[in-house]
Amino acid sequence: MPHLSRRHLMIGAGAVPLAAPLAGLLSSPAAAQTGSGQQVPGLYRYKVGAIEVTAVNDGVRTFPLPDGFVRNASRDQVNAALEAAFQPKDVMSIQFNPLLINNGGKLTLIDTGNGPQPGNATVGKLRANLAWAGVKPADIQTVVISHFHGDHINGLRAEDGGLAFPNAEIMVPEAEWAFWMDEGEESRAPDALKANFQNVKRVFKDIDSKVARFAWDKEVVPGLTAVDAAGHTPGHTAFVLASGEGKLFIQSDVTNTPILFAPNPDWQVQFDMDGAKAAQTRKRIYDMLAAERLQLTGYHYPFPATGFIRKSGDGYEAVPAVWRPVL
Amino acid sequence: MPHLSRRHLMIGAGAVPLAAPLAGLLSSPAAAQTGSGQQVPGLYRYKVGAIEVTAVNDGVRTFPLPDGFVRNASRDQVNAALEAAFQPKDVMSIQFNPLLINNGGKLTLIDTGNGPQPGNATVGKLRANLAWAGVKPADIQTVVISHFHGDHINGLRAEDGGLAFPNAEIMVPEAEWAFWMDEGEESRAPDALKANFQNVKRVFKDIDSKVARFAWDKEVVPGLTAVDAAGHTPGHTAFVLASGEGKLFIQSDVTNTPILFAPNPDWQVQFDMDGAKAAQTRKRIYDMLAAERLQLTGYHYPFPATGFIRKSGDGYEAVPAVWRPVL
Repeated sequence: MPHLSRRHLMIGAGAVPLAAPLAGLLSSPAAAQTGSGQQVPGLYRYKVGAIEVTAVNDGVRTFPLPDGFVRNASRDQVNAALEAAFQPKDVMSIQFNPLLINNGGKLTLIDTGNGPQPGNATVGKLRANLAWAGVKPADIQTVVISHFHGDHINGLRAEDGGLAFPNAEIMVPEAEWAFWMDEGEESRAPDALKANFQNVKRVFKDIDSKVARFAWDKEVVPGLTAVDAAGHTPGHTAFVLASGEGKLFIQSDVTNTPILFAPNPDWQVQFDMDGAKAAQTRKRIYDMLAAERLQLTGYHYPFPATGFIRKSGDGYEAVPAVWRPVL
Repeated sequence: MPHLSRRHLMIGAGAVPLAAPLAGLLSSPAAAQTGSGQQVPGLYRYKVGAIEVTAVNDGVRTFPLPDGFVRNASRDQVNAALEAAFQPKDVMSIQFNPLLINNGGKLTLIDTGNGPQPGNATVGKLRANLAWAGVKPADIQTVVISHFHGDHINGLRAEDGGLAFPNAEIMVPEAEWAFWMDEGEESRAPDALKANFQNVKRVFKDIDSKVARFAWDKEVVPGLTAVDAAGHTPGHTAFVLASGEGKLFIQSDVTNTPILFAPNPDWQVQFDMDGAKAAQTRKRIYDMLAAERLQLTGYHYPFPATGFIRKSGDGYEAVPAVWRPVL
């Protein structure tokens, strides 16, 4: 594009002053000889009004497509959706993307990833990626939890069982807390769900004083409002982040991967505890996102996990946001 | 997604051993207090068979939509395409994405970005981003050029006028060299093009001994074959990178931003020197990419600049590749 005049080119956003580059940082000199063999850190920043948010990838799980991964779709139907998105058949790849919110220097983290893992794991990268972003665990003032599945809460604990974010107040949806802490619900739960009850108890054991509960439609921290998105779990919560003209819908698990569930909103992933209600919530929220052309971020969206929703056929299309090299 | 058994989860790709994270690397401790104010380095790695490629962003230019930016579409039509992609109206944002190829330790760079810039520029980031990737300019053994527009060749020169990649052989399309070095072509060129001729002379002055010319359909470096993509310029060249089962189509400027030109392949960007031929080339190549479901990378695609093409309506849709947190 050689013919643009200077006049056309001067309104670009401001400079991007990088810190002094360090050779060998992302790949050792030895590795550079044969290929670095590793991906760059999963970090991406964008602005919501005056607020800076950072998608912080916790990793990816890749596994053979289990029977019943989508309760109400056949393997052939799931494979057709994968193929339409240029993905390999019979394989699922699920990503995990906590969100860091920097509002005037106050750091809030939404969801905490899969937590401590064995050395060869492909998940549990949240704290390493936060460190790349210059954020220490002790800097996080608030951790907001969307719901109590392990891939969202297990990162609250460090390797030694202590709190991974030692200075953070932990804020959880009151409906979610009420369900998982209810002995009656636990006793009535099917076996497959009992491990989840036990995991919730493990994670929240002895830290009641650090945990605050919030209601839907209330501001959790400045700019961040909790939204009823029940269905996936009884207290499953989405959020709206707003600042000035900026607005971001933080969908949590309204869908799992959009590759399957945006075009097929009636499909129920096996993790949807009330599948019919989850589908109803999905369509209600995606209709709103499409009508308002509102930017969203999804915890299980492919990194950098942000985009827009438009109606397409009987469902929706998730349009990835354009990467901005300048914040 | 709490119910997956270990059995399902063990086939993920290998570990991602990160170097020791450095707090404050991407944002100073002071900046972290109010927001980092800067994007992360524009780097993304993926494999093509045994070859590791890295998209290395050179930055973005953002400017008011000029009249005639698309020769044969109205402002309203261009704005409609921008709006369909959830982009602001009346603004163009063009990115620049050179590609680094690491084939068994031999480093080849395709195109060189906008070159040295004033301090506040939003382009010219190639060498800084290469440094983040652990690659020094002296490590590059070969620079392959797709065509002679300034945003592809200006990065061959450093601030002092010397060679930016001092040890690299520079390989250029012979048809491109023949056109721009032809005194007759220059004398017949319209005024708007004369600056481009002068820039080509500036960049290639006194370095004949470093420059080799390659023909279409020939292997330029191992695994990389030049493809006739003339139209955008007389010698405009695309490439196929192949290794084992892996294959990547490197489209160079077959389209400028896919936001406008994938859905509207007959539109001619003002930089297409032979607009009709460029459109013909675009449709021929995109028909092939769609039919073969072949992954592509585009120099002006939004970072990480890789995806797939499918037919859609009277044109095409560019489907971004899914980011892979594990290489």
